[in-house]
Amino acid sequence: MKIKVINPNTTLSMTRKIGEAAMAVARPGTEILAVSPAMGPVSIEGHYDEAISAIGVLDEVRKGDSEGCAGYVIACFDDPGLRAAREIAKGPVVGIAEAAMRMACFISGGFSVVATQHRSRIILEHLVRSYGMDHACRSVRTTELAVLDLESGRADAYSIILAECRKAIAEDHADCIVLGCAGMADLVDPLVQELGVPVIDGVACGVKAVESLLDLGLSTSRGGGYDFPVAKDYVGHFRDFSF
Amino acid sequence: MKIKVINPNTTLSMTRKIGEAAMAVARPGTEILAVSPAMGPVSIEGHYDEAISAIGVLDEVRKGDSEGCAGYVIACFDDPGLRAAREIAKGPVVGIAEAAMRMACFISGGFSVVATQHRSRIILEHLVRSYGMDHACRSVRTTELAVLDLESGRADAYSIILAECRKAIAEDHADCIVLGCAGMADLVDPLVQELGVPVIDGVACGVKAVESLLDLGLSTSRGGGYDFPVAKDYVGHFRDFSF
Amino acid sequence: MKIKVINPNTTLSMTRKIGEAAMAVARPGTEILAVSPAMGPVSIEGHYDEAISAIGVLDEVRKGDSEGCAGYVIACFDDPGLRAAREIAKGPVVGIAEAAMRMACFISGGFSVVATQHRSRIILEHLVRSYGMDHACRSVRTTELAVLDLESGRADAYSIILAECRKAIAEDHADCIVLGCAGMADLVDPLVQELGVPVIDGVACGVKAVESLLDLGLSTSRGGGYDFPVAKDYVGHFRDFSF
Amino acid sequence: MKIKVINPNTTLSMTRKIGEAAMAVARPGTEILAVSPAMGPVSIEGHYDEAISAIGVLDEVRKGDSEGCAGYVIACFDDPGLRAAREIAKGPVVGIAEAAMRMACFISGGFSVVATQHRSRIILEHLVRSYGMDHACRSVRTTELAVLDLESGRADAYSIILAECRKAIAEDHADCIVLGCAGMADLVDPLVQELGVPVIDGVACGVKAVESLLDLGLSTSRGGGYDFPVAKDYVGHFRDFSF
Amino acid sequence: MKIKVINPNTTLSMTRKIGEAAMAVARPGTEILAVSPAMGPVSIEGHYDEAISAIGVLDEVRKGDSEGCAGYVIACFDDPGLRAAREIAKGPVVGIAEAAMRMACFISGGFSVVATQHRSRIILEHLVRSYGMDHACRSVRTTELAVLDLESGRADAYSIILAECRKAIAEDHADCIVLGCAGMADLVDPLVQELGVPVIDGVACGVKAVESLLDLGLSTSRGGGYDFPVAKDYVGHFRDFSF
Amino acid sequence: MKIKVINPNTTLSMTRKIGEAAMAVARPGTEILAVSPAMGPVSIEGHYDEAISAIGVLDEVRKGDSEGCAGYVIACFDDPGLRAAREIAKGPVVGIAEAAMRMACFISGGFSVVATQHRSRIILEHLVRSYGMDHACRSVRTTELAVLDLESGRADAYSIILAECRKAIAEDHADCIVLGCAGMADLVDPLVQELGVPVIDGVACGVKAVESLLDLGLSTSRGGGYDFPVAKDYVGHFRDFSF
Repeated sequence: MKIKVINPNTTLSMTRKIGEAAMAVARPGTEILAVSPAMGPVSIEGHYDEAISAIGVLDEVRKGDSEGCAGYVIACFDDPGLRAAREIAKGPVVGIAEAAMRMACFISGGFSVVATQHRSRIILEHLVRSYGMDHACRSVRTTELAVLDLESGRADAYSIILAECRKAIAEDHADCIVLGCAGMADLVDPLVQELGVPVIDGVACGVKAVESLLDLGLSTSRGGGYDFPVAKDYVGHFRDFSF
Repeated sequence: MKIKVINPNTTLSMTRKIGEAAMAVARPGTEILAVSPAMGPVSIEGHYDEAISAIGVLDEVRKGDSEGCAGYVIACFDDPGLRAAREIAKGPVVGIAEAAMRMACFISGGFSVVATQHRSRIILEHLVRSYGMDHACRSVRTTELAVLDLESGRADAYSIILAECRKAIAEDHADCIVLGCAGMADLVDPLVQELGVPVIDGVACGVKAVESLLDLGLSTSRGGGYDFPVAKDYVGHFRDFSF
Repeated sequence: MKIKVINPNTTLSMTRKIGEAAMAVARPGTEILAVSPAMGPVSIEGHYDEAISAIGVLDEVRKGDSEGCAGYVIACFDDPGLRAAREIAKGPVVGIAEAAMRMACFISGGFSVVATQHRSRIILEHLVRSYGMDHACRSVRTTELAVLDLESGRADAYSIILAECRKAIAEDHADCIVLGCAGMADLVDPLVQELGVPVIDGVACGVKAVESLLDLGLSTSRGGGYDFPVAKDYVGHFRDFSF
Repeated sequence: MKIKVINPNTTLSMTRKIGEAAMAVARPGTEILAVSPAMGPVSIEGHYDEAISAIGVLDEVRKGDSEGCAGYVIACFDDPGLRAAREIAKGPVVGIAEAAMRMACFISGGFSVVATQHRSRIILEHLVRSYGMDHACRSVRTTELAVLDLESGRADAYSIILAECRKAIAEDHADCIVLGCAGMADLVDPLVQELGVPVIDGVACGVKAVESLLDLGLSTSRGGGYDFPVAKDYVGHFRDFSF
Repeated sequence: MKIKVINPNTTLSMTRKIGEAAMAVARPGTEILAVSPAMGPVSIEGHYDEAISAIGVLDEVRKGDSEGCAGYVIACFDDPGLRAAREIAKGPVVGIAEAAMRMACFISGGFSVVATQHRSRIILEHLVRSYGMDHACRSVRTTELAVLDLESGRADAYSIILAECRKAIAEDHADCIVLGCAGMADLVDPLVQELGVPVIDGVACGVKAVESLLDLGLSTSRGGGYDFPVAKDYVGHFRDFSF
Repeated sequence: MKIKVINPNTTLSMTRKIGEAAMAVARPGTEILAVSPAMGPVSIEGHYDEAISAIGVLDEVRKGDSEGCAGYVIACFDDPGLRAAREIAKGPVVGIAEAAMRMACFISGGFSVVATQHRSRIILEHLVRSYGMDHACRSVRTTELAVLDLESGRADAYSIILAECRKAIAEDHADCIVLGCAGMADLVDPLVQELGVPVIDGVACGVKAVESLLDLGLSTSRGGGYDFPVAKDYVGHFRDFSF
């Protein structure tokens, strides 16, 4: 099975890192196609970036069918375009925030999300509520880091994240850390070593969720609000987006 | 004050109707600029349409500053692009679903939303939860109507909506109807006559909410998750969307 | 349109301040009638004061009809008598806590309420839940101030409130302050200057909400739990209160 | 111990019935003092009646101390004045709605409230939420009955209530009925006979709750929002109500 | 009436303490039978201990009928086996956590639970949610104490608990303490003296709840999910447990 | 990897069916060990059966280590013993109700659970709340079927379940069915054919969840409430259960 892992931003070094994280957990027989859209922001930090990046995500999902992709992972912790992508993809679509939080519930008595920028807090809190995780998520913690600080090799990025994880454990009684950015996938191992509790990366969880759905022969229900879009005209820039 | 009322779809007959509904309630001194984006779907029915229409909404908000617009109403009951628009607009931005539901709370012991297509149910239920309206909204009711049935003069559209409103009152104990589509703005008066309970149109409520915010000198807080976007590069189709 | 702004306590200096706050935001054509009831406590600090003050509020609402009042604002942040007033008033009735919190939602990713006495905390927390604001209100913060400290010119009142607002922003990640007492209406401007985030006064919000409802031709629904009271006898002190 | 059972309305035949229900379950050593206030409505049907009746309740609680009353039951299913009464009473104060719903939780997997007038629905639904009973209460059901229909010997009152209870069991899967009016206390036995599930009267539960609290030496905490009222002036009609 | 108070662990010194706490509040005419099961863990600290102890609880409830027991109190703050016990007991069954939290609601504007081991936090938080106490319980606080530290006369146990109670009051604004372990029953009086707010022991509350239910002639409803078990075979160790 | 799939009841025909459902979805390299405990009820219908069956589940988990089992699926839709099993197992433990509901969220806008006996309703509703599925689960529907009716080849079992699924879709607007009993695993295919929406079996989902967790190197966190049990004595029947 071929799974398309879409990094919704256009920074290719991050796409590579995400692809490696996906391949590291993919089982034999799973092919990972890690891509960035041809359009969109270089990083996603806020609602505006998220709304724009959703179009790139949808474009990649539209193309996935002819590329033989059986399922999709949206590899940004804001889950941009997730619900829309479910309408147009034949196969299942999973966002890494949703995948990570649902996976955490199987092994944790209460997790915290540790993310990058402070401005992401309300986006993540909104996802927590949307996914029914109010009771399972003890805190959303953010830092002064920009998303691309994780790519640029900013020297203190790791120590800042580690410190925030420690606070989540000590102050909020979290027993598990969910990393709130796809660009943190390479931090899982050192963090586990130092923290002594499970640390969860959404990219890996997303791949496993799509593999599982495909194994079960499950895809998005067409019997309700995720039915394929109604055929209609789109105008202007989006002339080509008609379904 | 000039308020830009953005119909997120590209059907101009609906834009005109929305503009009329807005002007009908605007107070002296409020100028209404009713527009459709230059890009996007002819109607919004589902998450895919909504995601694409959000870009057109953002494009209109971006232009609004130079047009002298002091505030914005997003006139589709899915509130597409609302949170992103708040980040980029200098003035306040209000979605008609949020405005209608908040207004209903001041006069009702429990309202129902009556909308068009069945596929919109989960979008509207999601908004109800997001806005903290679980306790106030007794039901989201949908019909077999397409959005453009309201424009095409489909003969039985009114009677279908009326029947669903009656069910909301009789079966769900609603004492107020919130119309779940901007294209229903012209149905308020006849429905009130027949139902005997308040019927609320979001376009009108959106205009009053923006007028109120402007009178109070209030706009979106920049002290948290709605701060102006971080300057960064956008690539491809969205090269011009960098903030 | 004439709007009656009812200060539920009997301290006239506060009524004047409230009236000024109301007039400052009323649009041309809105007449503000700011009153205190002829009966009740000099300040409202707790459930007992609130229950008694509700009667004075209802008395003022009853008289409002013959005074030509089209709508009503209850100008105490406990919203005393709000639901009862909705039953007896022909026009819409708005409480300042409800108005302020709903208005804050349009511009904030999470507000805090900063109020006077510690004993008010549970009243305000109860309102937060009742109005569906659990997700939107990050904290209810109280201080050692008595309501009348705001009237008496207690020198450190402003600095105590300012300090509490700063804590709400720093510790609770609030991006907006809702002032939890009608007597704080005159503090909005200096607080905005120092805090750099929106500061919301309920009196002003209440006036705008009533103006909006009147513009929209909306008043309390009679189709459910807010129908006019059933005619019946009242005995003793309340002989005159039969509807 | 002497427990004052306050019927908040002024209909003495109902007060007698309530007193009998209280005495029927009071244990040896408990003295029941069943009273109606000297002021207020003849029945409580809606928020307006409730607000006014609260004053009569508070007046009776104020007098209770000198009458040697150790605790109080507010015997109307709207629990009027409950929170205010807790502030001024030395002993514990229990409302019959709260007592009945809490008692039901010990023996039921999901109860329904069956009440009188349709207009009470939103008051009772509000109490259900306030008391944390959303998950435990399967429905609030109301009928066409007025409160005083229960006193007047209206012939079909019992059969109307019975029919509504049956619907709660069959349609809402309730396994227990909570009677939503103090005037229904005499219906418990026949309803249990016919329905085969527990039927709970709040007056009886209120008496047991107060007895229990007194046995445990517990009364309202003064360490937070229910502290005794702050001494202050009350003016007009309420001059005598200063604490 | 005879009430069986079951200490689900097998430490008899704790059973004696629990029995004394029960007898101290039992009214004349109530006989207390305090027991430990013949099987199970010496203390209950975590889900595993809880699951095993539930069998001992059920065994004691099964025997209670022939012992003439009219009702049951499960005297461990995890309420182990509570729902199962309700199915098999003829009389009412009450857990001390549920009893304590419901009692606290009658006298408090917000309580905190102060318990022993940190590992119990998620069990107690789960109970808080299950019982609808999210709004009423301000915090679950745990300490480094083992359950049997309370029995062994560990010198600093009291001061550790006292310190945690003080934090609950100062930091979480609790106005009432619920003791989160049956083994703390003897700490109520000194804690009340020092804290000045009500301190609630679940064993005492459980006895009063059962007395109340018996006085009211109420027992578990058989009309839903708590009906008596279906007759069936049990195999192996549990051959004797068939109902 | 070897995964132990534990049917908590002792009916071996059901264990075989469950084993087949597990093997049908296990990927190459996954070995399924399907077992029933040596002790417990022949079917699980209610809280009492569930409490007793939990011991058998724990016994099988205890033995799993020496059997080389890497993870565990508890294959009864009540998830009996799940939290306790997490404490004692080295590897991850997943219940089929939790697995099925979390999987459904990835592909559905709102699912319904269709289960066997009416008495299970409150158990399943409790799980729905515990897992944060209130918003995602549209209804829990039960039938007159006993668990063993599914084994005995009762002729109308399938048609009864099918009818209930149709009601869930038509009346509750579910777009996905979650089968609420491990014994229904063989009904997935025919139901999908007739219903046209996804039908989810928890056994299959449980296997995929454990495979995923193992692939990710994740197991239950020991940093909080699921830490390994504290060593202590167990007495009587449970002497051998000390950890």
